[in-house]
Amino acid sequence: MNPQRIEQVMRRMADAGISQMLVCDPASIFYLTGEWFSPGERLLVLLISCDQGPQLFINALFPVRHDLGIPVTRYADTEDPVSLIAGKLDAAKPTGIDKKWPSRFLLRLMEVVGVNGGYLNSSFILDSMRMVKDEQEIAIMREAAVSNDQAMAALVKLLPAMHTEKQIGQQLLGIYEELGTSGFSFAPNISYGANGADPHHKIDNSQVKNGDSIVIDIGCRKRDYCSDMTRTFFFQSVTPRAKMVYETVLSANQRAISMVKPNARFADIDAAARDYITAKGFGAYFTHRTGHCIGLDVHDWGDVSAANRDYVRPGMIFSIEPGIYLPGELGVRIEDLVLVTESGCELLTHYGKELTIIE
Amino acid sequence: MNPQRIEQVMRRMADAGISQMLVCDPASIFYLTGEWFSPGERLLVLLISCDQGPQLFINALFPVRHDLGIPVTRYADTEDPVSLIAGKLDAAKPTGIDKKWPSRFLLRLMEVVGVNGGYLNSSFILDSMRMVKDEQEIAIMREAAVSNDQAMAALVKLLPAMHTEKQIGQQLLGIYEELGTSGFSFAPNISYGANGADPHHKIDNSQVKNGDSIVIDIGCRKRDYCSDMTRTFFFQSVTPRAKMVYETVLSANQRAISMVKPNARFADIDAAARDYITAKGFGAYFTHRTGHCIGLDVHDWGDVSAANRDYVRPGMIFSIEPGIYLPGELGVRIEDLVLVTESGCELLTHYGKELTIIE
Repeated sequence: MNPQRIEQVMRRMADAGISQMLVCDPASIFYLTGEWFSPGERLLVLLISCDQGPQLFINALFPVRHDLGIPVTRYADTEDPVSLIAGKLDAAKPTGIDKKWPSRFLLRLMEVVGVNGGYLNSSFILDSMRMVKDEQEIAIMREAAVSNDQAMAALVKLLPAMHTEKQIGQQLLGIYEELGTSGFSFAPNISYGANGADPHHKIDNSQVKNGDSIVIDIGCRKRDYCSDMTRTFFFQSVTPRAKMVYETVLSANQRAISMVKPNARFADIDAAARDYITAKGFGAYFTHRTGHCIGLDVHDWGDVSAANRDYVRPGMIFSIEPGIYLPGELGVRIEDLVLVTESGCELLTHYGKELTIIE
Repeated sequence: MNPQRIEQVMRRMADAGISQMLVCDPASIFYLTGEWFSPGERLLVLLISCDQGPQLFINALFPVRHDLGIPVTRYADTEDPVSLIAGKLDAAKPTGIDKKWPSRFLLRLMEVVGVNGGYLNSSFILDSMRMVKDEQEIAIMREAAVSNDQAMAALVKLLPAMHTEKQIGQQLLGIYEELGTSGFSFAPNISYGANGADPHHKIDNSQVKNGDSIVIDIGCRKRDYCSDMTRTFFFQSVTPRAKMVYETVLSANQRAISMVKPNARFADIDAAARDYITAKGFGAYFTHRTGHCIGLDVHDWGDVSAANRDYVRPGMIFSIEPGIYLPGELGVRIEDLVLVTESGCELLTHYGKELTIIE
């Protein structure tokens, strides 16, 4: 258990007028307890009550490796764990609910406890804590990003010899292993040519062709924290139009990064990239937000988008990843991770961004 | 779109008094539309209204590859998709909710629409349809299980030469590729010796030792459907006690399988395995349900457990996977997939179950 973090959670709960709350996100539970659980579809809940402190509800199938020093209720597959939790709640008071909790549990809780006390999404309490990394977390995320730089370099070396997206992708897990990471933070995305116009293309047997853009979006997990980086290369040649698209994305990436400092707004960082791409005539082809926070999850809470009017603060880590996707033609995305510092930002990703043609 | 299935869904909705329902499970949406979406944390909803038919809500980031012939609302990252859905609901009527829908969306929907109409978990409608496979689904699942038999044989051949769990596990994706499958249906579980006492042990660098039990629980996805099988082997030797544990699990597996026929109850199939293991003195070490349904998801709805008083019906496919887990010592699990037929059941998994010592 991390008593400082638990104390901070309970203080924030009190500030928000929430006296009881259910946490189910395994990353948030790790953040508070130091132990990862992977409960699959089975219920996992850390109930935090301002009166009674934290207690854990977990299926008896899953071992609890450490002595957490809190009450642990282990239920069997034949029991209704929601009823066990309901017995610990004050039905007259509002209950904070984890944003990720599957509706089947919430609807069942409403049946058992009733709706008079009210329910609210209380994930902002832990999400906002996880958003600002402490020194130890920052050190680990620097390490994870360095491993990802090294993995990118290793993959790029393979490109001239291995010609399908899958052939390249299949090497990555071994590369991450050798770098001492614990594997992917997300399924790698490697897209050739027009495949790159779908930002969520799944790796397939496409062959790389002369003139293709090659989008490589990869991330590893190291000591529980995630890295994430995208680079775009060209194979053998680049057309003037593709070069112009690349340079537009690169400038957008740099303009957004130059905006990152304490008290900048996420929305303004997004606008720095988006307005530039729009001015160059590609606004309709930059179809996603500029970035997302990252930490114990590859998509932590908080994004760099027009909808996020919050201010960035030192210790936050997020991606800056503008892209242009021309259907049937090509995709270009350039993604870095930035750490907000007292005076500006530090790039965690170091792999070069100059336009590179792979022979 | 699959008009027959949509029609059946709407008939079942009418029978249950539900005139509007939200489906978010990508497998259920594939089952109805023929298209898989992988929306990550972003909202994906197929709204089915008995008055207006089905319509899809999906983030503009994700391409819709087929003309689904239904209204499709594509929303941007800066929009509130729940409000768009709310505008299509009748606030005075109950709304069916997908059991997997993250609470953040449900709580927001309750805010926008209010709670007067009521909300209920309506996943049973699609889950119970998906539980009974049609001829085409059965043919695909037979194929997937045969590929898994072949993968098990290929892995076992590697065991004498490769000595860590990870070394073995890292070969599996390539094996599945060669067999023409689309990869894992779940992260493979390979556990040596005492690691096998944790049914959800994660593959690590453990070395296999003389006398170790070797639990191999693997599954592939083929043409969108899942396979799943577990076999337990012994390395170089087996103690009399381990042999007795193995034979107890094997008998429990066979006793449960022999119970599978139309109008048997899931609970009784579970009891056939559990009572035998209990009679042999290991009841406390069989810590999970006897099995789970399988199809588009590796854990489809419906399980073989004491809590499930339903009757099995022809076309259902589920696992029979009793196990005994002796902490610090060993694990043994033997898992088959069975298809309920008109007169009994058909085993989809064919890999041998006689006690095997790997030299």
